[in-house]
Amino acid sequence: MRKVFREIVTIDEAISRLYSHFKPERKVEHLPIQKAVGRIIAEDVYSQTDVPPFDRATMDGYAVRAEDTFEAEEDNPVSLRVVGTIEAGIKPDVEIKEGEAAEIATGAMMPAGANAVVMVEYTRKRGDSIEVFRPVSPGENVMFAGSDVMAGELIVRAGTRLTHREIGVMAACGLKEVAVYGKPKVAIISTGNELTNPGENLEDAKIYDVNSYSIAAAVVENGGEAVLMGIVRDREEEMREIVEKALREADIVITSGSTSAGAGDVMYRILDRWEPGVLAHGIAIKPGKPAIIAIANGKPVFGLPGYPTSALTIFEVVVAPLLREMAGIADNSGKTIRARLAVKVFSAEGRREYLPVNVVRGSAGYSAYPVSGSYSGAVTAFAFTDGFVEVPENVVMLDEEEEVDVRLYSELKPADLMIIGSHCIGVEKLLELMRERQTFTTKVINAGSTGGIMAIKRGEADIAGTHLLDESGVYNEPLIKKYGVRNAVLVKGYLREQGLIVAKGNPKGIKGFGDLLRNDVTFINRNRGSGTRILTDMYLKELAREKGADFVEIVSEIDGYAVEAKTHTSVAIAVACGKADVGVGIKTVAVQYGLDFIPLRSEEYDFLIRKDRLNKKAVGVFLEILKSEEFAEKLQEVEGLKVYDRTGEIVELD
Amino acid sequence: MRKVFREIVTIDEAISRLYSHFKPERKVEHLPIQKAVGRIIAEDVYSQTDVPPFDRATMDGYAVRAEDTFEAEEDNPVSLRVVGTIEAGIKPDVEIKEGEAAEIATGAMMPAGANAVVMVEYTRKRGDSIEVFRPVSPGENVMFAGSDVMAGELIVRAGTRLTHREIGVMAACGLKEVAVYGKPKVAIISTGNELTNPGENLEDAKIYDVNSYSIAAAVVENGGEAVLMGIVRDREEEMREIVEKALREADIVITSGSTSAGAGDVMYRILDRWEPGVLAHGIAIKPGKPAIIAIANGKPVFGLPGYPTSALTIFEVVVAPLLREMAGIADNSGKTIRARLAVKVFSAEGRREYLPVNVVRGSAGYSAYPVSGSYSGAVTAFAFTDGFVEVPENVVMLDEEEEVDVRLYSELKPADLMIIGSHCIGVEKLLELMRERQTFTTKVINAGSTGGIMAIKRGEADIAGTHLLDESGVYNEPLIKKYGVRNAVLVKGYLREQGLIVAKGNPKGIKGFGDLLRNDVTFINRNRGSGTRILTDMYLKELAREKGADFVEIVSEIDGYAVEAKTHTSVAIAVACGKADVGVGIKTVAVQYGLDFIPLRSEEYDFLIRKDRLNKKAVGVFLEILKSEEFAEKLQEVEGLKVYDRTGEIVELD
Repeated sequence: MRKVFREIVTIDEAISRLYSHFKPERKVEHLPIQKAVGRIIAEDVYSQTDVPPFDRATMDGYAVRAEDTFEAEEDNPVSLRVVGTIEAGIKPDVEIKEGEAAEIATGAMMPAGANAVVMVEYTRKRGDSIEVFRPVSPGENVMFAGSDVMAGELIVRAGTRLTHREIGVMAACGLKEVAVYGKPKVAIISTGNELTNPGENLEDAKIYDVNSYSIAAAVVENGGEAVLMGIVRDREEEMREIVEKALREADIVITSGSTSAGAGDVMYRILDRWEPGVLAHGIAIKPGKPAIIAIANGKPVFGLPGYPTSALTIFEVVVAPLLREMAGIADNSGKTIRARLAVKVFSAEGRREYLPVNVVRGSAGYSAYPVSGSYSGAVTAFAFTDGFVEVPENVVMLDEEEEVDVRLYSELKPADLMIIGSHCIGVEKLLELMRERQTFTTKVINAGSTGGIMAIKRGEADIAGTHLLDESGVYNEPLIKKYGVRNAVLVKGYLREQGLIVAKGNPKGIKGFGDLLRNDVTFINRNRGSGTRILTDMYLKELAREKGADFVEIVSEIDGYAVEAKTHTSVAIAVACGKADVGVGIKTVAVQYGLDFIPLRSEEYDFLIRKDRLNKKAVGVFLEILKSEEFAEKLQEVEGLKVYDRTGEIVELD
Repeated sequence: MRKVFREIVTIDEAISRLYSHFKPERKVEHLPIQKAVGRIIAEDVYSQTDVPPFDRATMDGYAVRAEDTFEAEEDNPVSLRVVGTIEAGIKPDVEIKEGEAAEIATGAMMPAGANAVVMVEYTRKRGDSIEVFRPVSPGENVMFAGSDVMAGELIVRAGTRLTHREIGVMAACGLKEVAVYGKPKVAIISTGNELTNPGENLEDAKIYDVNSYSIAAAVVENGGEAVLMGIVRDREEEMREIVEKALREADIVITSGSTSAGAGDVMYRILDRWEPGVLAHGIAIKPGKPAIIAIANGKPVFGLPGYPTSALTIFEVVVAPLLREMAGIADNSGKTIRARLAVKVFSAEGRREYLPVNVVRGSAGYSAYPVSGSYSGAVTAFAFTDGFVEVPENVVMLDEEEEVDVRLYSELKPADLMIIGSHCIGVEKLLELMRERQTFTTKVINAGSTGGIMAIKRGEADIAGTHLLDESGVYNEPLIKKYGVRNAVLVKGYLREQGLIVAKGNPKGIKGFGDLLRNDVTFINRNRGSGTRILTDMYLKELAREKGADFVEIVSEIDGYAVEAKTHTSVAIAVACGKADVGVGIKTVAVQYGLDFIPLRSEEYDFLIRKDRLNKKAVGVFLEILKSEEFAEKLQEVEGLKVYDRTGEIVELD
């Protein structure tokens, strides 16, 4: 009789079943030491030789018997007969007797009889003899055999990740090869009729395969070797064949997709033909519930959900620790950091939630921002995710400012320059010039002008690009002050021509915002919080006033008002490919995509910069370039953007 | 006329000459995305497609016109005619008209006419129709085309190091290949008549080549590809040939050795045949003074000193930044940490010193310990070095407790378990059992019992192994209290049999310490601060008393008293290979090396553990194993060590 695991189990129970049926083992391989950098050493390594292997001169000079120099003084030198010359790498053919010396080079082997080296500076050559002006003590300027490493000493401990330093010591001890842990082979199978390989033409209703590639990369990051088995269709025979092939070739098998409903039963049947077969089918975890864990052919098989974020969550929580164990990589608790939650979060009771977050370093430590849309199958959700917060089964709410542990996907490398705010091509041009000058890592998060101001306030951004028009007609300064930003300055940026972007030749004859109400016109909007959105809404409010109508009424009549593009470019592309007839954006992108442009106004695109970041190197270079002739010229390449007399001007806000 | 750069220049001047004659350029190569993990992306990547590429159902259910469901209620369902079934990956062949619905799977393409999905849970099938019990709003359970990534959006910025996340997003956008920076090819040449390749037999006066291997590894760590050119003898023609070959094949050439005195002139002549040739010959830097920087065949050539620490210092300060720039790796300031200097340090005026330090995390941040012997050519010096402190030319002294910036060689990974103190094979056995249970990273520094106690006091060690005999005849407790250690407990360990280790058959007929005074007997001592050294000196003081002589007088008569082995094993090996006739050590190693053993006494080897580390996982496992039957058995394999009734007993010290 076969057991059936159809009930949902907790994540702890699922993991415990896995380890009770599978004992991870490590492979060992032998590599030349120069190929072993970054690998984990599998055995304690002891030196077989002394280092240095002989008593060695550490200075250029004369090998002597120290006793012979004891009487030497500056004005009463001792005279010694030079009986030979000893070079590095050549065995001395002399023995030093009383009253004798041999010329010796740094690194050369000490001759028998000698026990010290007089530096050449304290001697004078006199025919076949030297005069010594200073006494040396026994052992002076000599490195004794084995004083660096003695034969038998432990030089590298098993489990160490090899750097150039351990490799150098092994070389010094004469080791040519080293035993390191082998990389576990992980076969990766993507299942689903809708999948297409990247690079191929995408037919209707198909999407590109993400999981094969992101999981392969995650396998490599966790010390494994990824073997891509490709895409398999939802047909039992086909799936069975590829799973069996993977089980022959690899140490671990990962499938993704086809876990839910009927498709999941197929995978269940395939895996449960082995003993012990399926150990868990359905885990009380969010995201990732419909996962399968099985042991087939003595190897662990993981059936991950198809959604990228779900698949990677199960990978990180269940697969990665096993993989690292098999690869001999120590459980690195260093990958967890403490952070404060930036917003309140609700969680489902009874399921352990792995909440994806973006981590930003502020003035008072790290802040964790939950990444929205993570569970909907969005790939950008995990692209901007630094790690996750584990929310236990019995916790339903985490408060704002609550301290949480964030488990990082990769090591957190704070960018040299953190720019959060409005998106502008001018910023991209500026960053290009920065990169030409020096390599900086930059993180640019397009959060809109308002998002940028908040990020500056919380200390998360170095610089925020902003173009917020106040009702007084003044850009940025009044609204920034209203947000209560302190300890920051406003650096005037450049001018951007904003307007309506319409198709080439303006086929719909759009003249202004009034045309957005027409039934034959589809609009594309910008995201809330963006300066362009605020500008758009100001024009629409004006329109509502003109019409004597309510703002909400007006916008509900606009087809596409609810569709939010995140960047100017996205607006232009939507218009270019006919998805929308009109959007608000800068002239730059209209020209770039060969579209027509109806100017509305010139806006001031400025930079809000925290004062405590003004001395950061990357911020310094940023400001230098902003004010440079070079940048002014570069902007000329971009239609609709231009520097002006206020560019680079610093406005104090306090 | 040729310029001659024989004068010593500052490091800043040397670097400035390098960059004024050489503009680093980056190569670009195209890789399949799954091979690009860890590489640096060379160009901004924009999506060519929308993600998802079509409006997509995010739930299993029925595709409907939302308007048709507005009237639906729990007790008054709306009936819709099912006109088709839409699977993921297949283009819908139906259009939804008023009053119609189509069964749809998660991930499937929405049919024309439909604008929402009713989840299957809120419907009931009735023949060819369904009843809908809840209204849906337009867009509900639908992910619109481009809402994840819009065509034209910037998805990965140039300069980003690719992780599984960026790779997943690129796959989603259909990208098969990615442009990454190529790895600069670095040719490495070791020069010197004394060098032998690791793995080969070491002839008299020869040493193994260290620099080829440690520099090759450091090149890889800094994003380059290392090409080992092998060892070349100190002959001008041979050197010229290999340098020319390297200049043809590689982007950067590194030589090491042969920089000083006459040999350096040879390298100077070889490199100065090119234009501009040698830019600097001799840099005011410690260690590393006799370095050469040149441009030959349009490529940078670095002549590094032969001593491993000197070579690596120049590499880290001059070569690595250039290499990273050419590899497109951002200057990672994250590699610098603040630490307090553990001891006072004097530095040479007029030379910039790069002081090698070992960094340890204490309770009040990091402490930096200067690594002794670094400039003498010792390889262990750099093996235990975490990084260095830059001491400017005009600074002659850094005080104890002074805050310094430590530039780390590699990322600092605090070990899971830090053991500093006396060396014992029993500890190695215990660590072996720990590793069988779980992977921990352990750092064991053999600093002797006293060094261990001091490290516990400063919070640098979790555990210190100690066996210090007080004059009262009690082990450990009295002396630890004398050192004023607080907030720590003493955990009783095991018994070790200490005695005199002599050659097999005791050919010199040694009976006790009195024999050490004999002219025909060579002793090997242990390092100061070790428990064994203290024991040795206690016996020798007793001997002095017996003889009515002074202690200093007695030890000056012992041949080898000044030679300090760092471990028990080293003592045994010295006796085994005839370098010494007798040493003090534990029975274990005497038996291991087939030597004779004259018992002196059983000593108590205990563990001093900081209280604030008792809750660390690795410490918990350590104590668990110490008290286990498993460990008692394992120790039986080791002659001379045994657990006893006090093993695992906790002694409070406060």
